[in-house]
Amino acid sequence: MPKPATELRPLKTAAPQPHGPAAAVTRRAADRLRAGHLWVYRSDVESLIPPLGTNEVAPGALVTITDSRGIPLGTALYSAASQITLRLVSPEAALSRPAYLDQLRERLNAALTLREELAPDSPENNASRLIFSEADNLPGIIADRYNDLVILQLLTQGTAQDDVRQLLTEIIRERLQPATIIERPDPKVRELEQLAPPSPEPLHTNTPGTPTLTTVFTINGLKLHYDATSGQKTGAFLDQRLNYAAAARHARGRALDVCTYQGGFALHMAQRCDQVTGIDASRAALQVADRNLELNPDLQAKVEWIEADAFEFLREYEAAGEKYDTIVLDPPAFAKSKRAAESALRGYKELNLRAMKMLNPGGTLVTCSCSHHVPLEEFTAVVASAASDAGRRVQILEIRGAAPDHPAILTLPETTYLKCLICRVAD
Amino acid sequence: MPKPATELRPLKTAAPQPHGPAAAVTRRAADRLRAGHLWVYRSDVESLIPPLGTNEVAPGALVTITDSRGIPLGTALYSAASQITLRLVSPEAALSRPAYLDQLRERLNAALTLREELAPDSPENNASRLIFSEADNLPGIIADRYNDLVILQLLTQGTAQDDVRQLLTEIIRERLQPATIIERPDPKVRELEQLAPPSPEPLHTNTPGTPTLTTVFTINGLKLHYDATSGQKTGAFLDQRLNYAAAARHARGRALDVCTYQGGFALHMAQRCDQVTGIDASRAALQVADRNLELNPDLQAKVEWIEADAFEFLREYEAAGEKYDTIVLDPPAFAKSKRAAESALRGYKELNLRAMKMLNPGGTLVTCSCSHHVPLEEFTAVVASAASDAGRRVQILEIRGAAPDHPAILTLPETTYLKCLICRVAD
Repeated sequence: MPKPATELRPLKTAAPQPHGPAAAVTRRAADRLRAGHLWVYRSDVESLIPPLGTNEVAPGALVTITDSRGIPLGTALYSAASQITLRLVSPEAALSRPAYLDQLRERLNAALTLREELAPDSPENNASRLIFSEADNLPGIIADRYNDLVILQLLTQGTAQDDVRQLLTEIIRERLQPATIIERPDPKVRELEQLAPPSPEPLHTNTPGTPTLTTVFTINGLKLHYDATSGQKTGAFLDQRLNYAAAARHARGRALDVCTYQGGFALHMAQRCDQVTGIDASRAALQVADRNLELNPDLQAKVEWIEADAFEFLREYEAAGEKYDTIVLDPPAFAKSKRAAESALRGYKELNLRAMKMLNPGGTLVTCSCSHHVPLEEFTAVVASAASDAGRRVQILEIRGAAPDHPAILTLPETTYLKCLICRVAD
Repeated sequence: MPKPATELRPLKTAAPQPHGPAAAVTRRAADRLRAGHLWVYRSDVESLIPPLGTNEVAPGALVTITDSRGIPLGTALYSAASQITLRLVSPEAALSRPAYLDQLRERLNAALTLREELAPDSPENNASRLIFSEADNLPGIIADRYNDLVILQLLTQGTAQDDVRQLLTEIIRERLQPATIIERPDPKVRELEQLAPPSPEPLHTNTPGTPTLTTVFTINGLKLHYDATSGQKTGAFLDQRLNYAAAARHARGRALDVCTYQGGFALHMAQRCDQVTGIDASRAALQVADRNLELNPDLQAKVEWIEADAFEFLREYEAAGEKYDTIVLDPPAFAKSKRAAESALRGYKELNLRAMKMLNPGGTLVTCSCSHHVPLEEFTAVVASAASDAGRRVQILEIRGAAPDHPAILTLPETTYLKCLICRVAD
C-alpha cells in the first residue's frame, strides 16, 4: 500500500533540490494529486528544474513532482508535448528508471491477473483489454488482446521507449503466448505526444517472416475480424462487450444500429431481431462489418448496411415515417474537450429525439455516450429532455458502463467515460 | 402514445371551470409536468377548486391540473395529507374514475408483461417487483411477487380504495395464479398519507380459512423466506437481485456484509468465500437471515451473524486490525430528505473509509447507496474521498443500479435511487 502523499516529510535541505529532474506544481495541482488524481496539466507546472549539470528535462524523463514549497509528491513521467505534462507513476520521489521498470513488471502482472478473473478466456470470449493505462496504474500503456494477437499502444514519451517495449513483450509472451505482439498507437495521440512512428515489425511473432497480423476473435459467442494491417483504429469496441450482450437481450423486431462502425451492436441484435439495419458514415468500417457478418452466416439474411451520416439518416427516415422496435445510438465521442460539451449535448439531443419519435410503443432504445466530458447525469438529462420533447414516456431498464476489463480509477473521474442507458419507450 | 401536454388547447370557456375538482399549480410545477415530471408538491398548488355544488375536494379524488392561466395539464390523484399533493395519472383533463380504472387495467397488464420479459419465472428466480408505481405509470401502487405470494402496497389516498383493490386482485389472479394476494403497505407511508390500516385478510387465497402467508422463494438459485405475517417490511431487497449475483462473482476469501438485513449479500457471497460475517443492528432481521441460512445447508459452516451498529462495529474491528478480502456496505437510506443529504454523505464517508482501511490489497469493496437524494456522482465522489484518505488506489470495476424489474422513469429523476459500485482496492 502506498503511503498517502500527505505523510511524506519535506526534504531536510532548506531549498530541496533532488539530483534528478523536478517539477514544482501549483497548489491546485498539488491538492488534486494528494486527493488521488494522477495528472498535472501544463498550466499547473510552475517550474521545471533540469537535472544537475544539464539545461533541459528530457522528453519522457522521470521527474520528481513537488508542491510550491518543495515538498515532494511523487515521481511522474514527463511529456514535453502533451497538455498532460506529468503523469504520476509513484508516490515516491526520485524514482529511478530501473525502479520504474521493476514496478512496471509488478503492475503489469497484476493487470493480467485481473483480466484472468474479469474476462477469462472461453469459447465465448477471447478478446479483452489487458492493460488500461491509469486504471491499471500503468499510465501511457494500453494493450488489447484479440484471440492470438496482442495490440500494444505506448501513448506517452515516457512509455514509447525500448525498455518498456521489451519488458511488456517479455511478460505478455510469457503469460499469454500470443502468435503476435504488435505496436499500433492511436495516430492522434502519437501526434499530440510527438512520438516517432513505431516499427511496422511485430515486437514478437511465432512465425518470423510471415507474422500473423489478422485474426478472428470471439465475443459473446460472435465471431469478428481483427486486422492489424488496416487503417482502422480498433477491431471492436471491447468496452461495449457486455453492453452488446445486454442490448441483444432486450432487442426484438425491426432494429436500427446508428453508428454501427464494424457492426458490433447490429450483429449482436441480429441474434434476436427479425431485421437489422446498421448505418455508419465510414465505408471502410462497413466493409469490415460486412466481413464480420460473413463470419456469422446464420445472421446474414437479416442484416443490411447503409453508408450515411447519422443525423442526415435519422432526419430523412423520420420524415418518411419509418418505425423501429429497437434503436441503438452509439455515436463517437462528440465532446473531445470541455468546451465542445455544449454542442455535444445538442448532438445527443437531436439523435435521441429522432430515435424516440421513430420507436414503436414498447420499443427499446439503447443510447450510449463515450464522452468523458459529458457525465452520466447530464447525459441522462439530455435523453430525458428528448423524451419530453418527443412526448414519449420512457422507462430506464438498465444504466450500464464499460465492461469490467476496462476499469476506472475512483479518484480520476476522467477514466469513467462510457455510459449506456437501456430504455423502454412505454407508449 | 399520449399527446404532449403542450399540445392541449385551452378550454373554450373564458374562465375554464371543469365540472370535477381542479387544481391550479405554479408556473414552476407546470413547467416540470410539461417536461415529463409527474408530481406536484403542496407548495406548488396555487388553488384547489372543489367540484360544483360541494365545498371540498375529497381525499383520493381525481383532479384536473391546470396551469395558472387555466390551461389543463392532465388529471392527477389528489392527496389531502402527503407533501406530494398531486400525482399525474393522465395527460387528459377531467379523467373519470371509470376511465382511470380502464387505464389502470391496461397499464397493469403492460407492467406484468414487462416482468415476464425482464424477470421471467425460472428454477433460479421466482421473485420480482411486478408493479413499481410511477415507473409503470401506476402512481401509488407497488406489487412484489415472492414465489406463490403477491404483496400489494396501495400507497396513496387515490389508490387505497376498493375499486383499485378489486381490479388488481382480479388481474393478478388471472395472470399469475398466486396462492395468496395480500395488502401490506409501508407503515411510514400509511402514516404520511393518513390511510386506514388495510384488512389483515388476504385479498385472495387459494385455501380459504388457512391462507398461505409464508413462502420460500428463490433468487439467483438461493432459497429465502418470505413471511407476510412478520413485522419486517420486506422479505428481500429485490432491487439488489442482480447486484447480489454480481457481488458473488467478485467475492472471495474472508468477507464482511455490513447492514446484511436478512442476509442477502452474505448468503450470495458465501457461495464463493471461505468465511462470511453478516452484521446488522436488527436482531429480528438477523433471525430471518439465520433461517435463510438454514435453507441453504451447504453454506452453513461459512456464515456467522453479529448484531451490531455498523459504525460501532467498523470502528472497533478496524482498531483491532481485522482484515477482509471482500466487504459489502449496503446501509439503509441515510438521506430521507434533501436536507439530510449532507449528514448522509458524512455517514457514507465514514463507512467507506473504514472499509477501505480494512481491505487486504486486491480486495473487493461493494458499496451501495439507496438514497435518491444522493446522486451517483456525489456518491462516487464521497467514496473517492474515502479512498484518498485511506491512501488506497481503488479501481471501479462495475457501476450498477437496480435490477430491471425496478425501472426508473427518465423524466422523474427521483425514481433512480439505487447505486452499487463494485471496486477493487488495488494496493
